[in-house]
Amino acid sequence: MKDVFDKCRSWDRDRPLKEAGIYPFNHPITEVGEGTEVVVEGRRVIMAGSNDYLGLSTDPRVKAGAIRAVERFGATCSGSRLLNGTRSLHEELEHRLAVFLRREAALVVSTGFQTNLALAALLGPHDVVFADRHNHASLVDAVLLGSAAHRRYRHGDMAHLERLLTAADPAAGKLIITDSVFSVEGDLCDLPGVAKLAAEHGARVVLDCAHDLGLLGAHGRGAPEHYGLEAEVDLVTGTFSKSFASLGGLLAGPADIINYLRHVGRSVLFSAAMTPAAVGAALAALDVVEREPERRWRVLDLAEEAHNGLRALGFDTGRSATPVVPVRVGDETLCFRFWAELLAAGVFTNAFTAPAAPGGAALIRASFTATHTDAQLDRVLDAFATVGRRLGIIPPAPPTGYDPVRIARPALPVPA
Amino acid sequence: MKDVFDKCRSWDRDRPLKEAGIYPFNHPITEVGEGTEVVVEGRRVIMAGSNDYLGLSTDPRVKAGAIRAVERFGATCSGSRLLNGTRSLHEELEHRLAVFLRREAALVVSTGFQTNLALAALLGPHDVVFADRHNHASLVDAVLLGSAAHRRYRHGDMAHLERLLTAADPAAGKLIITDSVFSVEGDLCDLPGVAKLAAEHGARVVLDCAHDLGLLGAHGRGAPEHYGLEAEVDLVTGTFSKSFASLGGLLAGPADIINYLRHVGRSVLFSAAMTPAAVGAALAALDVVEREPERRWRVLDLAEEAHNGLRALGFDTGRSATPVVPVRVGDETLCFRFWAELLAAGVFTNAFTAPAAPGGAALIRASFTATHTDAQLDRVLDAFATVGRRLGIIPPAPPTGYDPVRIARPALPVPA
Repeated sequence: MKDVFDKCRSWDRDRPLKEAGIYPFNHPITEVGEGTEVVVEGRRVIMAGSNDYLGLSTDPRVKAGAIRAVERFGATCSGSRLLNGTRSLHEELEHRLAVFLRREAALVVSTGFQTNLALAALLGPHDVVFADRHNHASLVDAVLLGSAAHRRYRHGDMAHLERLLTAADPAAGKLIITDSVFSVEGDLCDLPGVAKLAAEHGARVVLDCAHDLGLLGAHGRGAPEHYGLEAEVDLVTGTFSKSFASLGGLLAGPADIINYLRHVGRSVLFSAAMTPAAVGAALAALDVVEREPERRWRVLDLAEEAHNGLRALGFDTGRSATPVVPVRVGDETLCFRFWAELLAAGVFTNAFTAPAAPGGAALIRASFTATHTDAQLDRVLDAFATVGRRLGIIPPAPPTGYDPVRIARPALPVPA
Repeated sequence: MKDVFDKCRSWDRDRPLKEAGIYPFNHPITEVGEGTEVVVEGRRVIMAGSNDYLGLSTDPRVKAGAIRAVERFGATCSGSRLLNGTRSLHEELEHRLAVFLRREAALVVSTGFQTNLALAALLGPHDVVFADRHNHASLVDAVLLGSAAHRRYRHGDMAHLERLLTAADPAAGKLIITDSVFSVEGDLCDLPGVAKLAAEHGARVVLDCAHDLGLLGAHGRGAPEHYGLEAEVDLVTGTFSKSFASLGGLLAGPADIINYLRHVGRSVLFSAAMTPAAVGAALAALDVVEREPERRWRVLDLAEEAHNGLRALGFDTGRSATPVVPVRVGDETLCFRFWAELLAAGVFTNAFTAPAAPGGAALIRASFTATHTDAQLDRVLDAFATVGRRLGIIPPAPPTGYDPVRIARPALPVPA
């Protein structure tokens, strides 16, 4: 007789890494300081592995927003939005987000993950959903929970998407669903290509703007604004745990679609509401997103400098267009060693291996925050140079040339 | 050509209810006071529709725990537990929960919903999962996302469960998964029956103690302690959005199982960590759970009084053994009208209709909080009497007798 627990007891992928001192996961941070330097296991290091793109996680205004909400509404909402969990603060955030994103309506959900799961309610048995193969796990699970036929297209491959759209039942409802910024490699989806194919085939477009809301576009409205294609995106999803310095997520789009998801989305109905603190933090962060566009500019500057600094050293940093900077390593053990030695050199990053790392090639993900100083960026690059050379990931001397990266930055809006 | 949005545009179940003034959902609360009375749309009402069983949502100690955590760790963790989102505070809560629940290890997850979704990782293609038909949506979705064969047994029907276990492949891994307290009707699962069948058939038992952790058992360890069957439950799940006055959830059990779920559970890996505020609130609530067992006694007293008061009036309150008190109405429109008139009479409750209401019979769910006063309970019963008679749900005069409910309360632990 088998035991369902056998699969857990035979799993020990973490043990050899822990024994070798190169385990890169779940390390507790004991002090966060002002966000750009943290204490991990007694040592102060630069945090270059956070989604805190605008540097708001420790911003005094955002912390004050969270604290005021606790003082006014308590520690929890003690139930789902539907029943007893809605506070006026949730409606304020939804109204503010709809105005910010120029959409008819918005719905906030307790996590970004569950925000995407709510999309399952859109996917009926007569529909076909077309999904990029690198989509976030929460979109993958939403499709699994929905009832639509599922077609996965190769990452960013518009020709493949076109073939799948052409092959689908012409009478079926069609939905294209994709990350706008892919979380591991920081690359942008080809929204112009997606929008063109959607128009030709009568498909709706749902875009997960988790990484780019608050970050891309002159006003921070994300990839749709960046591309000038806001009308071509039918429904936007996003999260508050990145630029918005909170936890939760949002859906924004036509009022009748949002109303339907509010009443039918299982991950909306059957989960407790965002806490007052989380709503208060997101509201305060939205204020900053609207008022301080220079933060977007700053972090994109840093990203471009990081890319080009790493490329000048001989690293391969892929096709990122965001503060998410992938550094390709290849071998998994070497990647974990790289992670550990970067930490020892004072830099906290993220290690990605299969299946999360695209193509199975392990990589280090560095990510940047608007509040990183130039000196901190220099220290990050120095650590990558020293450790990268020591481990043979880059040559002892810099290559004679490299392809520079240019990250598009919009003109700063004129202050009102 | 169909449009995936058509299903949303033709959905308008909320509209007639709103037009009739009996829409019972998503009403914003503008003031929470001390938790037992709230302001909804300008009117102060008794909150008898909350999962705040111990009355900790507005407890000054719990609010202070949330605020201290924001001050120390900021508004968000800006990433998943796995990568950069773990704070020493998460590990402190996990350690405290493992000690509290007398389990080897615990894992905290960003919501209770996602806590249960993580169970999908236990359900492999060679396993069979046996699930109560009234299980919470998050358990249902976990089974859908897992790879195991799925057998649903009639609610609480041990004979049916036994037949399904007997019919299953003897070589398969087996897991029985059930709510310990069912959320709509407040009834307890037959844990002695489940444990006996699990032992006979070599099945593991996973129990979702969302409603009973902190509430049932002399020490608040939930239904397993209440039944004296803690060793018979292999893995416990729970949520912080009820007695623990926060948002998030926990898995507790053998260290190797928890370690596996920490590294493999998709809803764990691919979601941002619980916020510092949420962890701080849960830690402070756990302090109260451990130190003030009289709160458990008090709310079970109130529940028993509510049941018997409602039954004396002629209401049918089902088989609840908790502060969740179902009041059966039957007709859906009548139920919504009952909800609206109770609110007008100063009492906020929850309305449940198909498919959430078992058997399709609509019901009002009242729930109670340790901090409700006797006077508040009297006002709730008066409102039920007045409105119930006006709407013909109960007879004009009380029936001559009723079956009293006796809710089991453990002996209070002797203070240390």
